[in-house]
Amino acid sequence: MSTERFSLNQATIKKADLAATIDHAVAAGVRSVGLWRDRVAEVGLAEAASRLSDSGLRFSSLCRGGFVTDPATADEQWKENLLALDETAALAEAGAPGSAPVLVLVVGGLPPGDRDLAGARERVREGLHRLAPEARARGVRLALEPMNPIFCADRGVVVTLGQALDLVADLDPQTGGVVVDTYHVWWDPEVLPMIERAGAEGRIASYQVCDWLTPLPEGALLGRGLPGTGHIDFASLTRAVEATGYQGDIEIEVFHQQVWDAPFASVVEDCVSSFDRVIAPHLATSRA
Amino acid sequence: MSTERFSLNQATIKKADLAATIDHAVAAGVRSVGLWRDRVAEVGLAEAASRLSDSGLRFSSLCRGGFVTDPATADEQWKENLLALDETAALAEAGAPGSAPVLVLVVGGLPPGDRDLAGARERVREGLHRLAPEARARGVRLALEPMNPIFCADRGVVVTLGQALDLVADLDPQTGGVVVDTYHVWWDPEVLPMIERAGAEGRIASYQVCDWLTPLPEGALLGRGLPGTGHIDFASLTRAVEATGYQGDIEIEVFHQQVWDAPFASVVEDCVSSFDRVIAPHLATSRA
Repeated sequence: MSTERFSLNQATIKKADLAATIDHAVAAGVRSVGLWRDRVAEVGLAEAASRLSDSGLRFSSLCRGGFVTDPATADEQWKENLLALDETAALAEAGAPGSAPVLVLVVGGLPPGDRDLAGARERVREGLHRLAPEARARGVRLALEPMNPIFCADRGVVVTLGQALDLVADLDPQTGGVVVDTYHVWWDPEVLPMIERAGAEGRIASYQVCDWLTPLPEGALLGRGLPGTGHIDFASLTRAVEATGYQGDIEIEVFHQQVWDAPFASVVEDCVSSFDRVIAPHLATSRA
Repeated sequence: MSTERFSLNQATIKKADLAATIDHAVAAGVRSVGLWRDRVAEVGLAEAASRLSDSGLRFSSLCRGGFVTDPATADEQWKENLLALDETAALAEAGAPGSAPVLVLVVGGLPPGDRDLAGARERVREGLHRLAPEARARGVRLALEPMNPIFCADRGVVVTLGQALDLVADLDPQTGGVVVDTYHVWWDPEVLPMIERAGAEGRIASYQVCDWLTPLPEGALLGRGLPGTGHIDFASLTRAVEATGYQGDIEIEVFHQQVWDAPFASVVEDCVSSFDRVIAPHLATSRA
């Protein structure tokens, strides 16, 4: 079917635990899931991997590592990032063939009281290069996620695909990739050439889709809707990603209170329908 | 004094009418104001110009023209933009020596139900080029304002300084300029080289300063604070603008409910103090 490449990012049904996420995905005929560390931790990595393996689902990414901008938490985050790499490797191993050992990196914002944006960005470069050998040793791909500038101060100082590509340029492509998330990059006048560049440089580790809604809710984090409910043109973005030869899963990752409050089965059904209607028509390839 | 180049943008004391804005500026020793069309319209252009002339204040800009992205409102906006040009010319003439005939352009977002961002941006180019001869004939400078991508869908499809410079590149610099507004451009990895480029191309028509606050309030419009209250590094941005040779006024334009609710005199005093403390130390030149 035309949703063969759809992956359900667990955050879209945020209140569901790992078992419920897997069960609802399977029940809806979904073939792949993107998981979150907190939900994996609830059951433990071994149990999570076992459940994933039993489900027959692919694993498309783990959210998330990163948070390398604040020197005050660097030691603690280093340990967390190593754990996240271990988890990513184990889950990708447990997932069905076609699973991707991708760890999504949210790099972090400005440390409290700090206005040195260039300095924070330099720490991202250093953090990536420090983490890269650990990722490579585990066969895991770091997926640097440029974030919408709305989050620049408090969540992610890397804000464009071009900037992300520059930051991973020294890493081998199988270790240092980028996430193309429509919510974060749709506004960028350079997004289409930068997607092309990301493809040419072999960097696209994940393609995530969700829509930009207006008006933005307070705090701005929860203004993400199902594809087709907002302002983003998924045709041009999806075609650009496809034109690079990207053949991986495509996650729907939605943060929205009403979506989170709805019954899980209904949300998963809406995701499948949204993918089928808004994303699938622009896909060049379908998965075997 | 070190706030010689400070201009009070009227929106910072949004509830004040034109007379109150002028009176409070004069009382606080402020030398320049940026005005808004609605407040000018309340008293009529002739009266507004007369009051401005009597005050001895400089005029630094008029907010705002633009809104050229929606074909459904194009005719109506064309007339509004011509009126705005007339107003800008008259107010700059009425202001003290050093006044700037600058009309700030907010270009508009995606038309309702429309997801063709590239098309909307093309209409900005067309709209600018259509308006340029009218501006030139009146001696007015169009100041294209790139806006934070947070507003891309509903307010301004031009989101980076580089994109704005490309859009005005065919116009003579005295007709087609850009606004450097810290709130809108601070996050851009290319902001410093693009400020340098804007200077080299003679395009900086206005420098506006306000801070980025977190968490963002609902709707995101009112998350603008006085310089020094948020996350923006005004040192690097102000120095970059100064390094281009920009010698114009520098507006503080803050949108924030608590600021709007405070007594006018207290807000103006806070602006002067903020400018003196956060902006003035980085100025290369002071006005005669």
